[in-house]
Amino acid sequence: MRAVDLIRKKRDSGELSREELSFLVSGYTRGDIPDYQMAAWLMAVWIRGLNRAEIAALTEVMLYSGEVLDHSEIPGRKVDKHSTGGIGDKTSLILAPIVAAGGLTVPMISGRGLGHTGGTLDKLEAIPGFNVNLSLEEFRCVLRECGMGLIGQTAEIAPADKKIYALRDVTSTVENIGLICASIMSKKLAEGIDALVLDVKTGSGAFMKKEEDSVRLAEVMVETGKRMGKKVVALITDMDQPLGRMAGHSNEVIECIKILNGGGPADLRELSLELSAWMFYLGEKTKSVDDGRKLAESMIASGKAREKFRQEPQRLPKARSRLDVASSASGFITSTDCEGFGIALAMLGGGREKKEDKIDHGVGLEFHKRIGDRAEKGEALATIHYNSDAKLAEAKSLISGSYHIGERASVAMRPLVHRIIGA
Amino acid sequence: MRAVDLIRKKRDSGELSREELSFLVSGYTRGDIPDYQMAAWLMAVWIRGLNRAEIAALTEVMLYSGEVLDHSEIPGRKVDKHSTGGIGDKTSLILAPIVAAGGLTVPMISGRGLGHTGGTLDKLEAIPGFNVNLSLEEFRCVLRECGMGLIGQTAEIAPADKKIYALRDVTSTVENIGLICASIMSKKLAEGIDALVLDVKTGSGAFMKKEEDSVRLAEVMVETGKRMGKKVVALITDMDQPLGRMAGHSNEVIECIKILNGGGPADLRELSLELSAWMFYLGEKTKSVDDGRKLAESMIASGKAREKFRQEPQRLPKARSRLDVASSASGFITSTDCEGFGIALAMLGGGREKKEDKIDHGVGLEFHKRIGDRAEKGEALATIHYNSDAKLAEAKSLISGSYHIGERASVAMRPLVHRIIGA
Repeated sequence: MRAVDLIRKKRDSGELSREELSFLVSGYTRGDIPDYQMAAWLMAVWIRGLNRAEIAALTEVMLYSGEVLDHSEIPGRKVDKHSTGGIGDKTSLILAPIVAAGGLTVPMISGRGLGHTGGTLDKLEAIPGFNVNLSLEEFRCVLRECGMGLIGQTAEIAPADKKIYALRDVTSTVENIGLICASIMSKKLAEGIDALVLDVKTGSGAFMKKEEDSVRLAEVMVETGKRMGKKVVALITDMDQPLGRMAGHSNEVIECIKILNGGGPADLRELSLELSAWMFYLGEKTKSVDDGRKLAESMIASGKAREKFRQEPQRLPKARSRLDVASSASGFITSTDCEGFGIALAMLGGGREKKEDKIDHGVGLEFHKRIGDRAEKGEALATIHYNSDAKLAEAKSLISGSYHIGERASVAMRPLVHRIIGA
Repeated sequence: MRAVDLIRKKRDSGELSREELSFLVSGYTRGDIPDYQMAAWLMAVWIRGLNRAEIAALTEVMLYSGEVLDHSEIPGRKVDKHSTGGIGDKTSLILAPIVAAGGLTVPMISGRGLGHTGGTLDKLEAIPGFNVNLSLEEFRCVLRECGMGLIGQTAEIAPADKKIYALRDVTSTVENIGLICASIMSKKLAEGIDALVLDVKTGSGAFMKKEEDSVRLAEVMVETGKRMGKKVVALITDMDQPLGRMAGHSNEVIECIKILNGGGPADLRELSLELSAWMFYLGEKTKSVDDGRKLAESMIASGKAREKFRQEPQRLPKARSRLDVASSASGFITSTDCEGFGIALAMLGGGREKKEDKIDHGVGLEFHKRIGDRAEKGEALATIHYNSDAKLAEAKSLISGSYHIGERASVAMRPLVHRIIGA
């Protein structure tokens, strides 16, 4: 078998066998196949696509490129959630305590933010003293004791994905459903889980802006997970505007604590309960999703979820200054360019454009107006929490331009959960 | 400008400007753009294609990546021929002496054979003492004194092409008309020529098996050359069977000497005269192609062309053994898998699969039967000239299988020159 022939096969729209995909992925991970051959193959895949069988096979060979965790010594089911990312998307920090308090084990291996979206790991690092760099042995200890653990990707987990993702990033081969599915699912299945709830975002703040693309990705991920013997369901959820009222690292941790204390914004609370409900149901803790929801509500009401998350908001780093973004007209918010909020936050220091960029955990955005809300001219649409004037004006103008104001609240409100795939 | 954005643009079928192509090619040649980004871009180009303006711009930036020779101190026109390659395709060694004897200057920079086709440089090296590695200064001297010079590509000539070609070879991005055109024309235009005759092969022994592909490549090359102020014409010529009776390095040199002595096979003589005629005409040595043909004939008849090629066949290395390939049936040759002959020759040691392979100049093939000829069962179709038994049986069976024999000579004979583009 030669890499150059497999590149040609995909270039000519051929289907690659499991053996051929394994040859490519393991050869590349070992360093026998050079970056340039993998890059040419990835571009051929981006343009020609992968079919369902190829996606499943690619996921499996990427999964077995590294260690697959085994938590069988911990009793009960292991369940996780994965989100495709968006603005203010902070549910991991809420779900893990709720679901662990309810008796399941949540072994979360999370990523960092890149571009306009935030990453769970970065949010956790806003908490002074929080260590995301546990060894796999330490991770197992924490899981046994707490029922939940959140760490970053280690060298042992899906090393093929790590190497391939870095290459995709610099060769314009990121946005492809087959490659995205294999990347996500190979990492998640390496966690040693029995069930997985996928939160596939759709809308102006998501990577997938069109609902049909989100649905296709969801279907492919669900099918791939099920082929590998896991319980998987995907919720297509709204990212046409930020989730909750807060974006930025400390800001989001504070909002999560509010939810765990029984407060917080309705949309974030609603989605957190819905995702927890599915995790309880797929983890066979409850007989129905409705029962799962009741269990999740009781974990908040009883304070048990809050206990799992022992963090005082006062200790979080905060930005020194605030600036309101005022509405330029009176009217109703008809839509938002949600991605613009994420880019503005990154500009202020709350995100990274390159992997090596440092993050300012204190900066953030507070959203006062949502789609359908009325705003008067001069009224604050959002508040910027900032530390430096450097790109403040640019960020302010971007945020202002990302709110679209019309004379009537004419839009039909989209539900938070658009549909459910794989149930 | 960022390479990753230009990769995305071509991936999404966008058109690249001259500035963007220059950024990519010069950045890659300098080493600022890594192999993996160029590989992804090449695959995007292979699949999405380049339009005429992009091909012309790419050719130009590749041409100016290195030195463009200037022979203005040598009086008269400088003319060359380029062939896309095939089996037994040896006209360069005949044309250069004819055209130089006729008073034009022929600055040929040639390539080596790869895969199933032979290369002019390798054939020249069959001649003991022939040095193809002249410096550009030595090349100029030879041109001034002899009116012709044949050397290999130097580091100064189109370095971008050298680097890009090596990458295309290992990333399955070779067979693309735009990339082939830019590669050929950037090297040929760097020779400092006024006019160029292109011999674009078509048929079972050519890289382009289908006539429409050969015509498209010819049209693109002619247009590109004309855009750059050169006189260019392309002849679409037959490669459904070997050209002449001989393949292999010494064998082909011997056959060229026969033509220059006024003998040799009719097809090789015919094509050599036709190509010489066009070179004389485009080089403004004659008023018409017909006059060019007469001049070429007179250069052979007078012995002047032979004088330019002072080589005695006795000094060439020859194979030790011979084996006939007999016809398995009686009938007429209806067609050949011409590429099979080239592969068989390479198996015997007369070609290379990898760039670093050594060539046995003595081995060769002698073709006794051509399309339309009658063969009796047991009669020799071809003779193998070999030095080693290693792959002899395999080569013999490949040659035998490459002759198709039918009951009737039913095929309409294809002319040697199918058509002329750009005249």
